[in-house]
Amino acid sequence: MRVGVLTGGGDCPGLNAVMRAVVRKGVQAYGYDFTGFRDGWRGPLEGETVRLDIPAVRGMLPRGGTILGSSRTNPFKEEDGVRRIKENLAKYEVDALVAIGGEDTLGVAARLTDEYGIRCVGVPKTIDNDLSATDYTFGFNTAVTVATEAIDRLHTTAESHMRVLVVEVMGRHAGWIALHSGLAGGANCILIPEQRFDVEEVCGWVTSRFRASYAPIVVVAEGAMPKDGQMVLKDETTDSFGHVRLSGVGEWLGKEIESRTGKEARTTVLGHVQRGGTPTAFDRWLATRFGLHAIDAVRDEAWGSMVALRGTDVVRVPLAKATEKLKTVDPALYEEAGVFFG
Amino acid sequence: MRVGVLTGGGDCPGLNAVMRAVVRKGVQAYGYDFTGFRDGWRGPLEGETVRLDIPAVRGMLPRGGTILGSSRTNPFKEEDGVRRIKENLAKYEVDALVAIGGEDTLGVAARLTDEYGIRCVGVPKTIDNDLSATDYTFGFNTAVTVATEAIDRLHTTAESHMRVLVVEVMGRHAGWIALHSGLAGGANCILIPEQRFDVEEVCGWVTSRFRASYAPIVVVAEGAMPKDGQMVLKDETTDSFGHVRLSGVGEWLGKEIESRTGKEARTTVLGHVQRGGTPTAFDRWLATRFGLHAIDAVRDEAWGSMVALRGTDVVRVPLAKATEKLKTVDPALYEEAGVFFG
Amino acid sequence: MRVGVLTGGGDCPGLNAVMRAVVRKGVQAYGYDFTGFRDGWRGPLEGETVRLDIPAVRGMLPRGGTILGSSRTNPFKEEDGVRRIKENLAKYEVDALVAIGGEDTLGVAARLTDEYGIRCVGVPKTIDNDLSATDYTFGFNTAVTVATEAIDRLHTTAESHMRVLVVEVMGRHAGWIALHSGLAGGANCILIPEQRFDVEEVCGWVTSRFRASYAPIVVVAEGAMPKDGQMVLKDETTDSFGHVRLSGVGEWLGKEIESRTGKEARTTVLGHVQRGGTPTAFDRWLATRFGLHAIDAVRDEAWGSMVALRGTDVVRVPLAKATEKLKTVDPALYEEAGVFFG
Amino acid sequence: MRVGVLTGGGDCPGLNAVMRAVVRKGVQAYGYDFTGFRDGWRGPLEGETVRLDIPAVRGMLPRGGTILGSSRTNPFKEEDGVRRIKENLAKYEVDALVAIGGEDTLGVAARLTDEYGIRCVGVPKTIDNDLSATDYTFGFNTAVTVATEAIDRLHTTAESHMRVLVVEVMGRHAGWIALHSGLAGGANCILIPEQRFDVEEVCGWVTSRFRASYAPIVVVAEGAMPKDGQMVLKDETTDSFGHVRLSGVGEWLGKEIESRTGKEARTTVLGHVQRGGTPTAFDRWLATRFGLHAIDAVRDEAWGSMVALRGTDVVRVPLAKATEKLKTVDPALYEEAGVFFG
Repeated sequence: MRVGVLTGGGDCPGLNAVMRAVVRKGVQAYGYDFTGFRDGWRGPLEGETVRLDIPAVRGMLPRGGTILGSSRTNPFKEEDGVRRIKENLAKYEVDALVAIGGEDTLGVAARLTDEYGIRCVGVPKTIDNDLSATDYTFGFNTAVTVATEAIDRLHTTAESHMRVLVVEVMGRHAGWIALHSGLAGGANCILIPEQRFDVEEVCGWVTSRFRASYAPIVVVAEGAMPKDGQMVLKDETTDSFGHVRLSGVGEWLGKEIESRTGKEARTTVLGHVQRGGTPTAFDRWLATRFGLHAIDAVRDEAWGSMVALRGTDVVRVPLAKATEKLKTVDPALYEEAGVFFG
Repeated sequence: MRVGVLTGGGDCPGLNAVMRAVVRKGVQAYGYDFTGFRDGWRGPLEGETVRLDIPAVRGMLPRGGTILGSSRTNPFKEEDGVRRIKENLAKYEVDALVAIGGEDTLGVAARLTDEYGIRCVGVPKTIDNDLSATDYTFGFNTAVTVATEAIDRLHTTAESHMRVLVVEVMGRHAGWIALHSGLAGGANCILIPEQRFDVEEVCGWVTSRFRASYAPIVVVAEGAMPKDGQMVLKDETTDSFGHVRLSGVGEWLGKEIESRTGKEARTTVLGHVQRGGTPTAFDRWLATRFGLHAIDAVRDEAWGSMVALRGTDVVRVPLAKATEKLKTVDPALYEEAGVFFG
Repeated sequence: MRVGVLTGGGDCPGLNAVMRAVVRKGVQAYGYDFTGFRDGWRGPLEGETVRLDIPAVRGMLPRGGTILGSSRTNPFKEEDGVRRIKENLAKYEVDALVAIGGEDTLGVAARLTDEYGIRCVGVPKTIDNDLSATDYTFGFNTAVTVATEAIDRLHTTAESHMRVLVVEVMGRHAGWIALHSGLAGGANCILIPEQRFDVEEVCGWVTSRFRASYAPIVVVAEGAMPKDGQMVLKDETTDSFGHVRLSGVGEWLGKEIESRTGKEARTTVLGHVQRGGTPTAFDRWLATRFGLHAIDAVRDEAWGSMVALRGTDVVRVPLAKATEKLKTVDPALYEEAGVFFG
Repeated sequence: MRVGVLTGGGDCPGLNAVMRAVVRKGVQAYGYDFTGFRDGWRGPLEGETVRLDIPAVRGMLPRGGTILGSSRTNPFKEEDGVRRIKENLAKYEVDALVAIGGEDTLGVAARLTDEYGIRCVGVPKTIDNDLSATDYTFGFNTAVTVATEAIDRLHTTAESHMRVLVVEVMGRHAGWIALHSGLAGGANCILIPEQRFDVEEVCGWVTSRFRASYAPIVVVAEGAMPKDGQMVLKDETTDSFGHVRLSGVGEWLGKEIESRTGKEARTTVLGHVQRGGTPTAFDRWLATRFGLHAIDAVRDEAWGSMVALRGTDVVRVPLAKATEKLKTVDPALYEEAGVFFG
């Protein structure tokens, strides 16, 4: 049996750890051979491979990113995509694929399995933790940890100058990183994409915090939005790169708070440091277990399945489930955090 | 309503974070007053209290240890213990207790509620993660993180000198810290209390690792034991403090490996750094949620209940459950890790 | 003897550690009393004080920021400033001042001593390390450490996607943070305010790095500037806050690299995380020694002097020296780093 | 020109960073070739080499330990040692050597240059910082940082249980690590090899700390010794490995404090975590600069010289100087720290 491995979508701490576990167990327990495909689905599409054996994964457990590279290539959007993949799998004598990726990458794996009989097993990956089929995805804990350490650092600078510090964290569609790092970092308020915020209310929290002689930290997910009418259209397009993320809500909010409350405000956009670098112990453990169970799924010929965390168990769910529904922050959970606002 | 709070047993990162959440929500959402009792059950027993209000818990989220102090005092082993507690609760007009602690502390709370009608709610605490009623306890992730960082550091020193590094981590009765940090740190083998190890097998793993020109890291829980006959009685009592932990299995194992394999071995006993200091983001989040749910249990008059983590939900379970059964490492889970040994 | 203490200018990890050492030694070795003045020179100007004794500095060694608060208030720009300061010092019976701050704060102290006979001793503070009288200032090592950790994290994300990562670090007038963190983080090139950079040359380094199949990290100080004609005036004013720092050179450079090389580029602006939070061990040691020597200078009545680091010794230099000349990166030192560019 | 590189003595964070800088500048600026010798002087003695070129040093900046391996082999203690080295240098066409190591390694280099005309340049390495020719050695800042983080963690556990925590850090002959980490960590007292301590005085400090309701942290260097008559001979030999370090003074002191003051005491021996793992930003910077200057010394044919840090400059000193005198803690510096004791 020769197993192909690929990583798609944005990078995420733990990708290499998954790969290492897949290869270590595949070789040692089952005697499999491996082929790495470069840059997600681009690899099998264009026949670009990377050597993948035990020496190749040595030292990969603590290393962030992915040694296979990644891309957002979608074979269903390429001419003759499926046929070319089939040809390349045949050419490299690859019998099955372990696809590690998010909604898009796994969606392709699901269709390739279901519609074209290509034997795929999936490992879910999203730093935003917004896949409904699993309690957690690896990388999320690392992002939360990096964001929390940043918030820890910002408290003393906020208090020394009695300023507001706005911290923009990742999370376009789901506020998990904001919620967890905001709670862990002792934020004054947490703004998430799931619920439009009222700038006036935020300013009220900020002001009441100052009255208690604290300096407020406002954690805002990049995808959070103010209520209708509070942000004018031009604010959404000020970014010189054409990315909403960089010019986004954090900077806008800092400016609004400053002008509405009369308090100095500074914005920090954490950006890519949240997704780079070595995974936390939790993420290494989770990624390793996902890898071990993924190769077991290959051995069991559980094509079309994906590994997932449920409580402390790693289970199998249909790949299709991974893309079914975005896991957003439950209103009750968000309300629970609200006791710390203001 | 006036609520008493106490922390018992060994200290653990996150105790202060629980307290802060209990007080913040208790005061802000329910208008409760609070009394801190000093040093676990010694506080209500001897009437020693600490002021506990919102200013007192300011800045406590990231702070390790417990500002209330702790002890292993058991009122059932003290003369007139229950009566004295009742008198002190009356004296300080304390209507209910939130007890944060492990098996012993919560066992007392269970009996006080069930047998004497004292209104208690529990929050589980064990750095060893060995309580069966909850998926995780706070403090555990911090201990695993500290141990993993130490293992990360030891890899390069082991490889520079082609030595064996033995790392003794906490875990008297359960191998959770060893298992998680060993997996996350890329240990060569992991030895846990749940399964007696064979020194010869360990030496075999070490030797095979050197043959692959790696230097092995052996992670051993303080409570791990070799097979019968492999450790002579005097080894168990060499400690100058009278503690088995300090003189224990790590140092013995290093010596054995050295003499049996002919390779240099060094032992590091991580000790108290695993339980001190600021909690990780995960533990701050878990401790905060436990605190919020514990005060909700008080409001709901759910006496005799304890908060617990199930998947991503915080639920209530009977306090008695906390002490029912030690949660040890499942043999299947340990076997899963075995693919990395040797 | 009653000694007043104040902290002026931007906050910096180690301010509290200086204060603690001043108070601990002042009280224990010399029997002095202390008065804290709030918010830099605003405190003695407006008579706003903070209790400052041994209990007040407890736990302050590892804590970032300043418990006295800070400001940029300059008494020479206030009506009757010097007279008001003299009155308040008399009112609070303060015999001497320890002023902890940068160029501006110490410049005021120098004039107050030299021209008005107010007894001042100075402790130099600048996170940018640009004071010529001392080898290092506290806070600088912390900023470099935070920036280096960020660069470490960005390497793997850059490599996974074969992107350019531009990291903008602090340093308006001097490139010390960029130089040290760039060298420590393994940057592909380092751009500093002392030497205008050529965008084409930067793009050449980036391209050659990709040819060697690495992904480049470009570290740029916030005060770095391209050669004349390369940055159009409107780029300097795009910031919605009116701060050059936020909209600045990092984002502009990322965009330029992207359009000139055809490679994806992302910018991370580290911002306030560099100056907040707990000081590193080096900065705690330096701040503590500065504090001990500052109070010795008070005892020796060395008015108008400032403590400074020379090699491993703490020495005294005239306060006036602190403001004499900006310490910028020596061209030879910058050239030394150039071997790693490209 | 072909340059040989070797690393001798105990491992130290920054060795790989030195090597990387030597090779990067040697190849790129001067067109040299390189040969790595394995395990210190054993490499040239036995002709064991490692490929050393730009790809070989890729990613080595942040990596602890040494990819060349290390040993304490001394060619002057081997039969025909010098002749064999000469033959191997000739065989591999190595024209000059860069020796990175401590007193012993550099002492050999000095003799080989002075007495046998072998062209050597040295880079000083000692984690203990006890070389008199340089202000600092790389690795020292990392060790101090690791020790300080451990002390930070131990404070809260000490305070929760009102225990004494004794922390044994590295330093056989010099107390630099103890002094710096003790000051940076806020230790209650610091015991160093340079000055025999009085157990009674230590107990007095401990007791007075408890009276102020703090819990004391005692930092003790592994080479610290009590006054004559306070430690009985058998205490020095209780170690089951035959190492004084492991059984040493920390555990003995904890026991003594416990029995003399009646307070619980716990000992943590930090051990090898202090010398393993990634170097701090400061050490990466210092190691990199040492490497750049060492290869410049080769180009300048400054045989028999060693690089050293003086203030912020890297200078050259005679290799013989490195071994001349142990740099111990100055009594005045130790006394300066004494204000924090008790």
